[in-house]
Amino acid sequence: MSWLPVSPESHFSIANIPFGIVSTSADASPRPAVAIGDHVLDLRAFAAGGGFGASPDMEKHAGVFSAATLNDLAALGRPFHRLVREHLQAVLSADTKMPELLKDNEALRRRALLPRAEVQSHLPMAIGDYTDFYAGKNHAYNVGALFRGPANALQPNYLHLPVAYHGRASSVVVSGTPIRRPWGQILRDSKAVPQVPVLATADKLDLELEMGMFVCRENNLGSPIPVDEADEYVFGYVLVNDWSARDLQAWEYVPLGPFTAKNMGTSISPWVVLADALRDAKSPGIPNDTPLLPYLRERAKDNVLSIELEVSLTTANGNTTTISRTNSKNLVWSWPQMIAHHTISGCNLRPGDLFGSGTISGEDSTSQGSILEQTQGGKVPLQLQGGEERRFLHDGDTLAIRGWAGKKGALVGFGDVTGKILPAHALF
Amino acid sequence: MSWLPVSPESHFSIANIPFGIVSTSADASPRPAVAIGDHVLDLRAFAAGGGFGASPDMEKHAGVFSAATLNDLAALGRPFHRLVREHLQAVLSADTKMPELLKDNEALRRRALLPRAEVQSHLPMAIGDYTDFYAGKNHAYNVGALFRGPANALQPNYLHLPVAYHGRASSVVVSGTPIRRPWGQILRDSKAVPQVPVLATADKLDLELEMGMFVCRENNLGSPIPVDEADEYVFGYVLVNDWSARDLQAWEYVPLGPFTAKNMGTSISPWVVLADALRDAKSPGIPNDTPLLPYLRERAKDNVLSIELEVSLTTANGNTTTISRTNSKNLVWSWPQMIAHHTISGCNLRPGDLFGSGTISGEDSTSQGSILEQTQGGKVPLQLQGGEERRFLHDGDTLAIRGWAGKKGALVGFGDVTGKILPAHALF
Repeated sequence: MSWLPVSPESHFSIANIPFGIVSTSADASPRPAVAIGDHVLDLRAFAAGGGFGASPDMEKHAGVFSAATLNDLAALGRPFHRLVREHLQAVLSADTKMPELLKDNEALRRRALLPRAEVQSHLPMAIGDYTDFYAGKNHAYNVGALFRGPANALQPNYLHLPVAYHGRASSVVVSGTPIRRPWGQILRDSKAVPQVPVLATADKLDLELEMGMFVCRENNLGSPIPVDEADEYVFGYVLVNDWSARDLQAWEYVPLGPFTAKNMGTSISPWVVLADALRDAKSPGIPNDTPLLPYLRERAKDNVLSIELEVSLTTANGNTTTISRTNSKNLVWSWPQMIAHHTISGCNLRPGDLFGSGTISGEDSTSQGSILEQTQGGKVPLQLQGGEERRFLHDGDTLAIRGWAGKKGALVGFGDVTGKILPAHALF
Repeated sequence: MSWLPVSPESHFSIANIPFGIVSTSADASPRPAVAIGDHVLDLRAFAAGGGFGASPDMEKHAGVFSAATLNDLAALGRPFHRLVREHLQAVLSADTKMPELLKDNEALRRRALLPRAEVQSHLPMAIGDYTDFYAGKNHAYNVGALFRGPANALQPNYLHLPVAYHGRASSVVVSGTPIRRPWGQILRDSKAVPQVPVLATADKLDLELEMGMFVCRENNLGSPIPVDEADEYVFGYVLVNDWSARDLQAWEYVPLGPFTAKNMGTSISPWVVLADALRDAKSPGIPNDTPLLPYLRERAKDNVLSIELEVSLTTANGNTTTISRTNSKNLVWSWPQMIAHHTISGCNLRPGDLFGSGTISGEDSTSQGSILEQTQGGKVPLQLQGGEERRFLHDGDTLAIRGWAGKKGALVGFGDVTGKILPAHALF
């Protein structure tokens, strides 16, 4: 319990303390903050006001609390993140032993505790590389079946290694950033000979519900990370909407993977929930009885998170429908396995790298993480509130993904990641 | 002609003036420089010594000449690059009108003109995203035939759009950086049922001869770049060796493209040859009689460069063989077409983004840009000097790619990009 009033429904209980980057209308410079209930604690102001004064370790690294991204904070490693989070929990708790730092320091509270509704969120990290995995086995099967038929739905490698591709880092945007409907090449008739595409705006714009993970530590080029040490490379997690234009994707993706179909934007939630905050949300994933090669064999069997996930769609008419409810444990590969595989060839990770899990789908249309799956490739429309329906996303639609773990009063949540579809620009 | 002695064989004639980042044993801080003959001109020292004093424009932006990367210089745009390059040519030319700036300023010459052999080169740009295209049609055909058979060698989309995938930016390294032989999953017997991979070090380590292009300008997310304006986004060019582990690649690449097979390292040459320096090296590429969609139709037909390219392999025994000679005009897509396609969906480019052309191959084994092609997948060994042979690269092999345009005495060259294969580390 905090001395600050925090609703039991809040994703940002004192059990959470997620980190982000904010600015205000009074001061446009982006700086670190943590979310607590309906407030944020501006860490630059808090540090300047002596909030970390009790700890020489935190004082020494005070510079990271005034940086414009969380990269430098992340790079200090998990023991440091733990120290900071636990200090902030102690400062914010109802029975704090350090009331002079914030609770009874009205001047600092006025400067550092800001209503969350009044801050602007920014991308929390400068993202070096963004890698998107494909660890949602139900999704991989469903999409594989739609693109290649059920017999070839899962490729022979799928259960042996965490399939992934390099994504586009420049177009990762923070929640709330609108997404412009893309132009691209579309093959209208896949049976025509020869196959001739048209240039058009995407008709099959879709979401992909994913979890994201930010890396906090680097390994040297040429040095793989052992799977049982990989957890030390995890800074924390966000929600991801990996927007996808299915018509662009179907034509372009062979043989080198999706490109323009996904590089027009990937949205993430603004608050990084630290790995430590989710220690009680570990869970096994989807069972995989394939014998794994040694570098993917984990001692811990619960390194997939259990996060409740929910997707809602609000139309231009203002109708909101929850279109999917699922859980992040619908992954067949854990985060440490993804890290171990990413680096097995010697690839170097850097603080600020973002991993996407791949689309998270349950087993039926009420729990799938993409409209492509829910509508069976656009064949069976989704029924929305107010009698509307969707085969794919329309201009003016706003998507919101929410995610949380834990119980009321101690929720460890992500808030949400939202994005509205804007109509395509006229081309040139 | 320069007042500095420059060999007629030098890639770094006064017609070139390529930009890089260097440090010295006396001063380890990386800073911008240009190469001229066997020297480099340290631009931080040159600017501090008043070398740009005559130009208010260059004075105003003098900060870019002491940055640790060329990103800020690049971001000032092509008119600024032109101004700087032409000023440096004027300062270095035999009949300079400004001898007081450098030629007759012995104190500044001592501080700013350094023997090239005594400087350490660094990555010239902080690379935001690295995109690898696949515009070498001969290569795409040859590799497609090896992986999927001649009937499916070129996919139906290949001549309609510049196929590309997102590469790994963190593992792009500067020439001279050794490359560690990677571990990974390998399917030894592709006909076995079921298919079960092993964990092993790559046997089929290969080079890929490519050109690279650095972006200098950003577009807004959601705003495609018209093909006829794309040239203004080109900062300059480098040589690229996109190291590839063919055995890892064959097993992992379906359905999302290569991942661990290429993310263990990509080498680039240290000097960025400015777009302006290659104005006389434009050339049409490989003809493509496919009717193109409007956004890929260029007014200019010569936007593929003509750069002579050469690959040599030096074994641990010291035998050096030139294994391939080709030309960069063996591309079916131009750089402006790659830019236009990359952004057609609205993807934003940023200064420092790197594009690779895809492997550049001529039509026979003496001009192909990968050993995979030259040995027909390892079947026909390459014959080297000293009686050695190679099906793929061995530990201790050093690869060097060289490239140049123009004539003796006025060569516009890249120097070379080298890399030595180190034996794999023991795994954990």
